[in-house]
Amino acid sequence: MIEIVALDADDTLWHNEPLYARTTARFRELLSSYYSSTWIEDRLSETELRNLPHYGYGIKSFSLSMIETAIELTEGHIKGDEIGEILSITKQMLAAPVQLLQGVTETVTELASSYRLVLVTKGDLFDQESKIARSGLGDCFSEIEIVSDKDKTIYAQIASRNRIEAKQLVMVGDSLRSDVIPAMEAGCLAIHVPYETSWQHEVLPDEVLQQYRFLTANSIEEVPGLIERLHRTAV
Amino acid sequence: MIEIVALDADDTLWHNEPLYARTTARFRELLSSYYSSTWIEDRLSETELRNLPHYGYGIKSFSLSMIETAIELTEGHIKGDEIGEILSITKQMLAAPVQLLQGVTETVTELASSYRLVLVTKGDLFDQESKIARSGLGDCFSEIEIVSDKDKTIYAQIASRNRIEAKQLVMVGDSLRSDVIPAMEAGCLAIHVPYETSWQHEVLPDEVLQQYRFLTANSIEEVPGLIERLHRTAV
Repeated sequence: MIEIVALDADDTLWHNEPLYARTTARFRELLSSYYSSTWIEDRLSETELRNLPHYGYGIKSFSLSMIETAIELTEGHIKGDEIGEILSITKQMLAAPVQLLQGVTETVTELASSYRLVLVTKGDLFDQESKIARSGLGDCFSEIEIVSDKDKTIYAQIASRNRIEAKQLVMVGDSLRSDVIPAMEAGCLAIHVPYETSWQHEVLPDEVLQQYRFLTANSIEEVPGLIERLHRTAV
Repeated sequence: MIEIVALDADDTLWHNEPLYARTTARFRELLSSYYSSTWIEDRLSETELRNLPHYGYGIKSFSLSMIETAIELTEGHIKGDEIGEILSITKQMLAAPVQLLQGVTETVTELASSYRLVLVTKGDLFDQESKIARSGLGDCFSEIEIVSDKDKTIYAQIASRNRIEAKQLVMVGDSLRSDVIPAMEAGCLAIHVPYETSWQHEVLPDEVLQQYRFLTANSIEEVPGLIERLHRTAV
């Protein structure tokens, strides 16, 4: 019997990936007199990945990686004004309106009437708190977990702290790597709701995926029905 | 009867302020050909304060404010290489060894044998997690709360989640504004352990302080004795 529905936030409840894509496009434009678009984007990705152990996820980390990439690509010749433009883009990202995916408010409200809801999100504490506040959904959740990275211990802890068995928790999210697989490794259930673009970057080998049996929803609006099905099966 | 001892981290368990002071000194040196030291430091403080609502606390926020200050002070003429130097200082800050204050390991271990310990720290999630891991103290704490800012609701929540009364929790920290006053506003007890330098920047008006009765320790090593005294009084 399912007690807790845990939900991811970025690209599950609200759009996130397009914000990074738009910012990357502006960054490419800023450096377009120096290099080709593809070259710039590839170097930015490399810098981001290299900096992950230093900075973690989030907009401020992304901003520092954009600045580093701009300096490296121009061999230090980039002007202060141009770096100032990157800071300005960063502040615009941080202040960007939170755009909920279709049907999120209705679905989350409906789920909250039957289950305890826990929001489990990765990234920058300050930025994620601000987005949750601006989303207007904060009150639907009995717990909000903002973590620097998601692994199976996070999901196990939520279950144990709430004194339920792992299989009484279902995790809902767009990421196989952060939401679905680690939740299932902790013995929880999972529903994958692929996001329009980000899922493409998240391909996992078939032999990995075949080990896990999870449900897939075409949109968040299908989630309550799927949970109802899981719920009936488990009783 | 005291059940929980909550402890602040930066400048209570380990040195933090000197790291920012050293970095600020290197930043001043970097811009010394453009402006006087005092002028640079004042502008950096202003930028930090102005950016707090955008960035929150922490090293990455501080770094973005250093870059912004450097661009503003040089009217955009700063070179990419010099900004690169700021990024390098930032990474050194993030990787700086965690230097515990004297007697911290012994004191925290002693407290953990009698009370449930909760670490309550403000700042950047990723950076604080890394410092806790490197401090070697993580296992002494039954809970670790990393928050973007500290107010009385944080302390009230810790008590309520642990099913104790507020007065059964004592908060120990170097900051009157973040540790002592909000904990007491939540009905908890508090012990102030002033840090060698940062307490000077934290002066509160006497009429505010007179409303609160808290104990002051000269060092963390005095804390177990003071808690023992509070404990006996409360029984």
